[in-house]
Amino acid sequence: MTIKIGIVGYGNLGRGVECAIKHNKDMELAAVFTRRAPESVKLLTEGVKVYPYDEIMTKKGTIDVLILCGGSATDLPVQTPELAKAFNVVDSFDTHAKIPDHFKVVDEAALLGGNVGIISVGWDPGMFSLNRLYAGAVLPGGHDYTFWGRGVSQGHSDAIRRITGVKDARQYTIPVEEALQEVRDGKNPELSVREKHTRECFVVAEEGADLDRIKEEIVTMPNYFSDYDTTVHFISEEELMKDHKGIPHGGFVIRTGSTGWENENNHVIEYSLKLDSNPEFTASVLTSYARAAYRLNQEGQKGCKTVFDIAPAYLSSLSGEELRKHLL
Amino acid sequence: MTIKIGIVGYGNLGRGVECAIKHNKDMELAAVFTRRAPESVKLLTEGVKVYPYDEIMTKKGTIDVLILCGGSATDLPVQTPELAKAFNVVDSFDTHAKIPDHFKVVDEAALLGGNVGIISVGWDPGMFSLNRLYAGAVLPGGHDYTFWGRGVSQGHSDAIRRITGVKDARQYTIPVEEALQEVRDGKNPELSVREKHTRECFVVAEEGADLDRIKEEIVTMPNYFSDYDTTVHFISEEELMKDHKGIPHGGFVIRTGSTGWENENNHVIEYSLKLDSNPEFTASVLTSYARAAYRLNQEGQKGCKTVFDIAPAYLSSLSGEELRKHLL
Repeated sequence: MTIKIGIVGYGNLGRGVECAIKHNKDMELAAVFTRRAPESVKLLTEGVKVYPYDEIMTKKGTIDVLILCGGSATDLPVQTPELAKAFNVVDSFDTHAKIPDHFKVVDEAALLGGNVGIISVGWDPGMFSLNRLYAGAVLPGGHDYTFWGRGVSQGHSDAIRRITGVKDARQYTIPVEEALQEVRDGKNPELSVREKHTRECFVVAEEGADLDRIKEEIVTMPNYFSDYDTTVHFISEEELMKDHKGIPHGGFVIRTGSTGWENENNHVIEYSLKLDSNPEFTASVLTSYARAAYRLNQEGQKGCKTVFDIAPAYLSSLSGEELRKHLL
Repeated sequence: MTIKIGIVGYGNLGRGVECAIKHNKDMELAAVFTRRAPESVKLLTEGVKVYPYDEIMTKKGTIDVLILCGGSATDLPVQTPELAKAFNVVDSFDTHAKIPDHFKVVDEAALLGGNVGIISVGWDPGMFSLNRLYAGAVLPGGHDYTFWGRGVSQGHSDAIRRITGVKDARQYTIPVEEALQEVRDGKNPELSVREKHTRECFVVAEEGADLDRIKEEIVTMPNYFSDYDTTVHFISEEELMKDHKGIPHGGFVIRTGSTGWENENNHVIEYSLKLDSNPEFTASVLTSYARAAYRLNQEGQKGCKTVFDIAPAYLSSLSGEELRKHLL
């Protein structure tokens, strides 16, 4: 028997989940739900139907886990608690400051419905968070550093696109190599925002636009760019399509700390990701946690959980015996 | 109220646990048990008593978790099941091939006693195993690589010491940089034993010993050295003490895999450790899992578990709210 997955929202992330399901033999795609016109959505998987989001409650009981692929700004704060009343759900809610509130409302809904809701799944929050926790538990009193990149920041790219005279743009967040090295060397540096990351922008300007003015507007933009060393390259639309159509990302979580009676021995724990496709990798993490949501609920568990609350074995399609024999 | 820890066996690992307890404010060292003469064992912690191993059962009910710091060859196969009948226990059993058998006997004993027994805790098995599991669940169909070093291998150092004419020796296991790079580049190389690691030996010979014969015996030693490119350096006892008295280790767990409908996007997940002291780091991992053993048992759980079966939150001294707020 396979685990029946429903996808809610069919953008880059939803399509990534569809691909991940293809690569996990113990799962099948049961349905896709969208707020667009269903007939306008073309799936990769044959024989699977697309339903309007409004009909989702009629599918209660026929889907084991819903993977929610909407955005954290407006979709998930509404959808996750709403759907957790009727389904096991997994989302990638990533507004760090609002996670405690999101946890609370999803927990209430999931407890009410007798379902499992796993929130903030992906790589940050997600795999990076796990590594911060494990490393912190093993080396208490150490120092934690998270670097992101080299990768495309959707939010920063959008911010550039809103500038008058900009036709399209792609922004890369890049960790500063010297800062990374200082951290790895155990120097416990105090790093400012500017010292940790630089920003590189590839901008397609409208014909006749004032390039100096655009550049100035970018590098001085508060919150997004003014605290960083930012480079701006003007390129053609063809170059943007050719060289910058991917959505790579990644980063590093490093903890340094010491052991010994007088802290005489030093240690470095480093976790890093180098991803060709940010949404597809996030989708793959979501899909493995959908397996966990299903199993936990089968065991009678309910309520909201995060990656911190879930034993690793629940993510794997292998049995406990196989895991101990081959991976331990 | 603090968690009362007992240490069984007071070698490098036991002393490392003692140091780790000092750095974890929610724990205290309750007692140390040894098979040596107790009066010959001098602890770092003031006011803690050393007991003969034979008296350990009299301490039942006064210790929350025993951390077993004996060896995997002869100590743990006997001690862990024996002690799991009366105490929550954590061990670092690392004979990979015998883990399934060890799990079984410890499980029976721990179920009988109503205790939690966590086995094979450390960094490999342990943190490396966790990373193999997480990465494998997220990227099914990918390739796993584990490299060890640069670090001291106790077993290989001992093997050299058994050669006639050798006074002392230290052996370093070193990952081959080119192999690491091929793996990181996603080339999925098939690597022979020789292609993954080299071995470097620092040997103190007895006066008048035949150095050529010793070198030949080392590099041709089956299992230990004959399958590797091995370098032998003869040094003085003073040099060995000055430059090679530490017990550093570390290594890399790398998984490469792809996502997308036709596997068109590639990803690299890498976890690495760089440790000044192998036993102290292992001890720190053991200590964080002692916290988990205690909490799980407080919740009424019992039986044998591995790092795969334990939700990460149990390792941390922070509450669920604090973890979600600060680390997620």
